Amino acid sequence: MLDPHITLTTDFGEESPYVAAMKGVILAINPTARLLDLTHQIAPQNLRHAAYFLKESIPYFPAEAIHLVVVDPGVGTERALLYVDTGEHRLVVPDNGCWTPLVPPGARPQVRRLAEPRFWRQPVSSTFHGRDILAPVAAALSRGTAPEVLGPVVDDWVRLILPAPHQNADTWDGEVLFVDHFGNLITNIPGSAVFRDDARTAEVEVDGRPVPRLARTYGEAPAGTLVALVGSAETLEIAVTQGSAARMLGAGAGTPARVIVRN
Amino acid sequence: MLDPHITLTTDFGEESPYVAAMKGVILAINPTARLLDLTHQIAPQNLRHAAYFLKESIPYFPAEAIHLVVVDPGVGTERALLYVDTGEHRLVVPDNGCWTPLVPPGARPQVRRLAEPRFWRQPVSSTFHGRDILAPVAAALSRGTAPEVLGPVVDDWVRLILPAPHQNADTWDGEVLFVDHFGNLITNIPGSAVFRDDARTAEVEVDGRPVPRLARTYGEAPAGTLVALVGSAETLEIAVTQGSAARMLGAGAGTPARVIVRN
Amino acid sequence: MLDPHITLTTDFGEESPYVAAMKGVILAINPTARLLDLTHQIAPQNLRHAAYFLKESIPYFPAEAIHLVVVDPGVGTERALLYVDTGEHRLVVPDNGCWTPLVPPGARPQVRRLAEPRFWRQPVSSTFHGRDILAPVAAALSRGTAPEVLGPVVDDWVRLILPAPHQNADTWDGEVLFVDHFGNLITNIPGSAVFRDDARTAEVEVDGRPVPRLARTYGEAPAGTLVALVGSAETLEIAVTQGSAARMLGAGAGTPARVIVRN
Repeated sequence: MLDPHITLTTDFGEESPYVAAMKGVILAINPTARLLDLTHQIAPQNLRHAAYFLKESIPYFPAEAIHLVVVDPGVGTERALLYVDTGEHRLVVPDNGCWTPLVPPGARPQVRRLAEPRFWRQPVSSTFHGRDILAPVAAALSRGTAPEVLGPVVDDWVRLILPAPHQNADTWDGEVLFVDHFGNLITNIPGSAVFRDDARTAEVEVDGRPVPRLARTYGEAPAGTLVALVGSAETLEIAVTQGSAARMLGAGAGTPARVIVRN
Repeated sequence: MLDPHITLTTDFGEESPYVAAMKGVILAINPTARLLDLTHQIAPQNLRHAAYFLKESIPYFPAEAIHLVVVDPGVGTERALLYVDTGEHRLVVPDNGCWTPLVPPGARPQVRRLAEPRFWRQPVSSTFHGRDILAPVAAALSRGTAPEVLGPVVDDWVRLILPAPHQNADTWDGEVLFVDHFGNLITNIPGSAVFRDDARTAEVEVDGRPVPRLARTYGEAPAGTLVALVGSAETLEIAVTQGSAARMLGAGAGTPARVIVRN
Repeated sequence: MLDPHITLTTDFGEESPYVAAMKGVILAINPTARLLDLTHQIAPQNLRHAAYFLKESIPYFPAEAIHLVVVDPGVGTERALLYVDTGEHRLVVPDNGCWTPLVPPGARPQVRRLAEPRFWRQPVSSTFHGRDILAPVAAALSRGTAPEVLGPVVDDWVRLILPAPHQNADTWDGEVLFVDHFGNLITNIPGSAVFRDDARTAEVEVDGRPVPRLARTYGEAPAGTLVALVGSAETLEIAVTQGSAARMLGAGAGTPARVIVRN
């Protein structure tokens, strides 16, 4: 049988010992687990960042993987910790909604509240449930522990809804969801709003400023050109060829983006 | 038999090819080794950072793992390279003391000086013993090489002692040991100094400035509140809810912290 | 049989979901693949950085590993994607030359243009061939797919030539190739130009400024001393003991370096 995969997604950074402690805890429980870092650079306690990251990465994984997510501003408070089966992917995660954009519209995830301390590290600290509860539970799951024994099914949980664009007759009003490592501005407007099969043309604005050129890919325009294109998430993306659109425009998550369709 | 784990802890960063070179060296000797990054973001040549990191992460690992540590300001000088068995964990590490806080008080580690060039990469450079000596030795150990053949037992080595707090009648005087990724100030004062079972109350100061609130966890107070709590290392920690105590207070490793107990 | 290794080298950073998406894609095709991060901190679209990194890390790996490299300023344009067998190492990589310094002088690599969409993710985006083409091809190779079926042999490709030093009667004129995490300046001048067996002595200059001391290793001189030594790539390196030569001298990749030999 294949050794099980456990992925790790946190906002812990790398200079602190927290990720390493979780890896040790997992391997002490299941030395056959194969650990995969997804990221430890979620912006501190930034649930929208976590939500966007998970939505754009977890769907590519095989169903067998267990995804351990520790972005947890509510650690130690009354917020629950969850086992989630979206139907396609399994996560252990605080109940803060960062996983909910992963669930396809209409699908009904199975969610359990972690309630069985026998699967936890003891004593449980007030400030590091990633190490003391989530990591040992992920390790137990990877050894074949049935989700049923981890805690009761719950039918309510925190939802985090990534902002959706507004479509009007001839415009789309959306916003920047994420700024990537290159300074590309990834918006929530579907790429098809701009790149159209019909004869109409589209204009793109960011923060009221026109984006002069539509492109198919980054390297199509001369260096320094501000371009709009369809990014790898199939949404409108604003980029600067060999540069940073975020820096050029002073834009970030939440900056308004607009598409105007002209006849 | 389980494929062996080798963990890597360095101050090499990720943009430089040094970590990758070590991974290649290990896998060329033992392709079954399972490599785990602990961190490559120890502050350059900062042995206290390395010591704190190891102390707060290595104890969680199963005993089988081999821990390769390369924070090595003395590379190429007469400082020795060591194989260490703390009784609970095995490391290969320069003789600079960063591993010594791992050893429980009173325990007697087994320490050997690496002295057998047949286990090393040849030629050995003067500037990268991580690649040329420590990585191949870790790989040899992971293949079952007995520590006895690596070099002679030594009974002296560099000690690094993390600063201890001073306890007086009604005060504890300590300091910040580590600033984590969130800007939390982790001190060397035991959490039990502040959070007490008796009727007495405690006040906390950092750098002479009072910390207005004691909390059980970060999210208990409103955003921006400076709080004192027991951190995951079971010591006094100063934090700002959804913020950075290090930034708010201009504090760092070495900043004085004090607890005053009142009747 | 040993589970196959796939290494990942990108300029994607860690806060973005791109690396995680590629890991998912690979494991969905070959769950037995063992993934190894080499770096995701190549400077954005910096092919010289990528070339230097690969040249100083890939040679240490066993031949079985498959090296996935995604530094790809030309993504979506007409640039080809390649399977490369240098004779010693196998890579999947955009045709931008970053791999060519790996090939020993005189050796003739086998190079194929990836041309068989049946091995790709569908639909193929215009902006993320790492996820849609290179990762699935690496996964297919790791499952034993023969390179022959991936696409035709090509006999031309982009060459990237790292700058070479000029040797005159009594001088070497070179430059800084790479600034490492410690701020060490790694030049392209062979270490043997400075550290000589004969009676002649050498002087080192960086950007016209003399380097006062030759050393065998970093820790040989007092803290803060500017030293020249032979680095782990066997070239002349300029360092500051317990400091950063890049910061002290304001130097970076491309800064001139010179060795003057005196009788």
